[in-house]
Amino acid sequence: MGPESPAGYSCKPVTKVTIDDFVFSGLGIPGNTTNIINAAVTPAFAAQFPGVNGLGISAARLDLAPGGVIPMHTHPGASELLIVARGRITSGFISSANNVYYKTLKKGDSIVLPQGLLHFQVNAAKIHSVAFVSFSSPVPGLQILDFALFANNLPSLLVEKTTFLDDAQVKKLKAVLGGTG
Amino acid sequence: MGPESPAGYSCKPVTKVTIDDFVFSGLGIPGNTTNIINAAVTPAFAAQFPGVNGLGISAARLDLAPGGVIPMHTHPGASELLIVARGRITSGFISSANNVYYKTLKKGDSIVLPQGLLHFQVNAAKIHSVAFVSFSSPVPGLQILDFALFANNLPSLLVEKTTFLDDAQVKKLKAVLGGTG
Amino acid sequence: MGPESPAGYSCKPVTKVTIDDFVFSGLGIPGNTTNIINAAVTPAFAAQFPGVNGLGISAARLDLAPGGVIPMHTHPGASELLIVARGRITSGFISSANNVYYKTLKKGDSIVLPQGLLHFQVNAAKIHSVAFVSFSSPVPGLQILDFALFANNLPSLLVEKTTFLDDAQVKKLKAVLGGTG
Amino acid sequence: MGPESPAGYSCKPVTKVTIDDFVFSGLGIPGNTTNIINAAVTPAFAAQFPGVNGLGISAARLDLAPGGVIPMHTHPGASELLIVARGRITSGFISSANNVYYKTLKKGDSIVLPQGLLHFQVNAAKIHSVAFVSFSSPVPGLQILDFALFANNLPSLLVEKTTFLDDAQVKKLKAVLGGTG
Amino acid sequence: MGPESPAGYSCKPVTKVTIDDFVFSGLGIPGNTTNIINAAVTPAFAAQFPGVNGLGISAARLDLAPGGVIPMHTHPGASELLIVARGRITSGFISSANNVYYKTLKKGDSIVLPQGLLHFQVNAAKIHSVAFVSFSSPVPGLQILDFALFANNLPSLLVEKTTFLDDAQVKKLKAVLGGTG
Amino acid sequence: MGPESPAGYSCKPVTKVTIDDFVFSGLGIPGNTTNIINAAVTPAFAAQFPGVNGLGISAARLDLAPGGVIPMHTHPGASELLIVARGRITSGFISSANNVYYKTLKKGDSIVLPQGLLHFQVNAAKIHSVAFVSFSSPVPGLQILDFALFANNLPSLLVEKTTFLDDAQVKKLKAVLGGTG
Repeated sequence: MGPESPAGYSCKPVTKVTIDDFVFSGLGIPGNTTNIINAAVTPAFAAQFPGVNGLGISAARLDLAPGGVIPMHTHPGASELLIVARGRITSGFISSANNVYYKTLKKGDSIVLPQGLLHFQVNAAKIHSVAFVSFSSPVPGLQILDFALFANNLPSLLVEKTTFLDDAQVKKLKAVLGGTG
Repeated sequence: MGPESPAGYSCKPVTKVTIDDFVFSGLGIPGNTTNIINAAVTPAFAAQFPGVNGLGISAARLDLAPGGVIPMHTHPGASELLIVARGRITSGFISSANNVYYKTLKKGDSIVLPQGLLHFQVNAAKIHSVAFVSFSSPVPGLQILDFALFANNLPSLLVEKTTFLDDAQVKKLKAVLGGTG
Repeated sequence: MGPESPAGYSCKPVTKVTIDDFVFSGLGIPGNTTNIINAAVTPAFAAQFPGVNGLGISAARLDLAPGGVIPMHTHPGASELLIVARGRITSGFISSANNVYYKTLKKGDSIVLPQGLLHFQVNAAKIHSVAFVSFSSPVPGLQILDFALFANNLPSLLVEKTTFLDDAQVKKLKAVLGGTG
Repeated sequence: MGPESPAGYSCKPVTKVTIDDFVFSGLGIPGNTTNIINAAVTPAFAAQFPGVNGLGISAARLDLAPGGVIPMHTHPGASELLIVARGRITSGFISSANNVYYKTLKKGDSIVLPQGLLHFQVNAAKIHSVAFVSFSSPVPGLQILDFALFANNLPSLLVEKTTFLDDAQVKKLKAVLGGTG
Repeated sequence: MGPESPAGYSCKPVTKVTIDDFVFSGLGIPGNTTNIINAAVTPAFAAQFPGVNGLGISAARLDLAPGGVIPMHTHPGASELLIVARGRITSGFISSANNVYYKTLKKGDSIVLPQGLLHFQVNAAKIHSVAFVSFSSPVPGLQILDFALFANNLPSLLVEKTTFLDDAQVKKLKAVLGGTG
Repeated sequence: MGPESPAGYSCKPVTKVTIDDFVFSGLGIPGNTTNIINAAVTPAFAAQFPGVNGLGISAARLDLAPGGVIPMHTHPGASELLIVARGRITSGFISSANNVYYKTLKKGDSIVLPQGLLHFQVNAAKIHSVAFVSFSSPVPGLQILDFALFANNLPSLLVEKTTFLDDAQVKKLKAVLGGTG
């Protein structure tokens, strides 16, 4: 891919384009859920799947082991449409008007999660659950709340002032997630 | 849904919105493939799934029985991203530069099909294959080539003049697909 | 022009821009209609007329000798507005709902052809007819149905499976249009 | 047409749509040039040609009698592409960087005039000249400089303060164009 | 205002439009900062200032008493540009790549906060500070993190599972902010 | 910044981005009003404030000494939202329908000026007045009417033909503003 502009990456010359630019196999491989959230997100954004550049769409695969959770997060640049491919998943979002919308979805159910709003997925089955999600942009972005608050060098004092979380709570999660300050 | 404008349907009042507006169960139900193409498209566009109105995304389910084919078609208003959920599917498109791009995809593989270009899906497995597809618009539209040419009242003479198909061929397919003229 | 991105070409430095970047003379020259369709399309897209880059518009000239036809085609990236400058032209399109809309237009009549839908132009006069068309994008694209099906290496078997055309018909048109497979 | 929103008018129900919604004959009729500018603009915007609603394009016809002038004006909502259909026309625009670009165009020549910039057309032939123009929006708008300054109730004092024109000049043109204040 | 569509509200008839539709006085009035955050946001979104409907822009006023904080929040539908009008304000955001960007701004300084990302403002002066902010949409939306997590009926268990916050912390803030569940 | 495309400048690599890319101090400095208009515009467009690139917003500061005027002008690429920070300012615009909308605004009042329409600001106070304005694009453009007509090499004859201004008036203002021709 060429340099990035606000509208996406520069295009590959047509003479070098092959069918393999439009095909991506990564979503067929289960993500590694041996981690703190017992879950994994496998993205097929423009960075992983350059063929979606400029086409207004991208995708991802969610794997949730028993007890798995995709924690509260947002996509700053896209709405999301999720379909459950295996198991059962509780998913929902909180609106700009601060209303809560969530439901437990069975295999084959879809939910749409509007752009930029906090949302989550929780495995509601005793088995490994899988969902395929798509986005209304090739570069949806992903901001996981806990990573934004606790996994970087944002000073604890600033976190506490702007979230009203207790110092002990902030320090505890910074320790778990590798944050500093 | 309220009246339609170029940007979509009027919005439901927030006080009447529930989680069920954002959830759709239709993609979990196999489409009926007992038909001429041994295949079915189950759409979750704004007309079927009003929750996607204004959100830049929609979806559909493809069912392909053995020998099934989603015939050559376009979506005038959206790019498409397909993921194979079961079986094997040969899918591809023809570009504006008249190049052909297609591949046989296995379970978990994805392909992106750019907006407005002719594309197709053919079952490449001996079993019933399934794909989930998403679109970069809540109203992608769907124009199936054979229906456009042979399943309405477009006069045979005009079809022949503008496609170079033989009269016998046009008449034969008009008979099959219920077209007149 | 510089490299292409999804939003168009890189811009020329302002100091090198002259009035000639914004002027195009190609639409004043009749296209050569000595061909199989007795017709010609002369484009003024961004590739021919770089001044339209980023401006949301482009144009073309249609020449139709007696008996001339612009065959069934789509513009994946733009709506089209046609005005008859000479002669009489029958033009129309097929909608996403599979409805047919067409009419014979006299000099001075306009028709609008929505983005991505199959449409056509046929000379309805005994004289050479001319139309000027404009597009809602500098890069409207152009997919001519017969070229997409019969003028490349898309295997005949795939064409037949996805269009229900007879093998003889496909082979005949592939031979005429130089396709292989 | 239904009520207007920022994205255009509400759509007509599909069952009531006919080919006549997509066809407009007004551009075939010469505008009346017996007026102060010896010229006429015949618009085919969404207000006159509802079929362009939501399609990103519209058109107009310019008639310039000998000596005719389409005075300095802007289209706040669209770029313009002009093609000379008869005669010779001098057209040009002034850029944001205050550079001047103009040329005398012969029959068949095109010029593109970027969105929102002051531009003009002057008949450069001794005969009646005609141009067809198209716009990158169904609602391009039209702000004629002299009408904006002198043909409404904007107080002369405010005109003078904000344009540095002399009081006598402002009063003279207000008198000609029917302005007050 | 008329009914809302994804592109905004229906337009007022031109004959009823007056200058007062385009003028808003609410940003001149200090917000009431006698509250838990010692701060106030006064919006001039389309809901408060209908004149911005369809125009791609809106605004707000921030008042921060000594010790005041606009807590961590996002605007799902717009980027924000802030200018300090009085005092000193520490403002910043966390990127999709989880990088932290913040700075203490003095009177006259501006900061731009990209769409959909978590950001905050903290009074860095001992006096009442004021900022004017503008947004790249008439309906930017506003999701305040603590309100989304603790001021509605999202069950504590779900909050805890999706944020890793301790039960005591969640219960404490739900009590402060009026949340249930 | 990298090369410009219709969607903006190429992006800086993330590893080189710092908070200073998102902060701009230029709007805190009063513009020099010792000039012919007793006023100054200090822009914070993408050219001055690269951090707004791709974010759909930009800003400027207006300084108006007693008697100061921001002359009649347009922004071809953006709507404007103005807030009075000091003094009193008369501002308004002329619509596409040629209606005049203006009002004298006091400190804290806002006005929205739709994209591409002629508008102005006049100091209505006896003191130095200040406004902050924001735009719905990082590259709004600025076309000042008098500069477009009188401060370049557009021939006087063309100015006169397309504006109906008298030759003496045109020559006088060309002399004042440094125009030729």
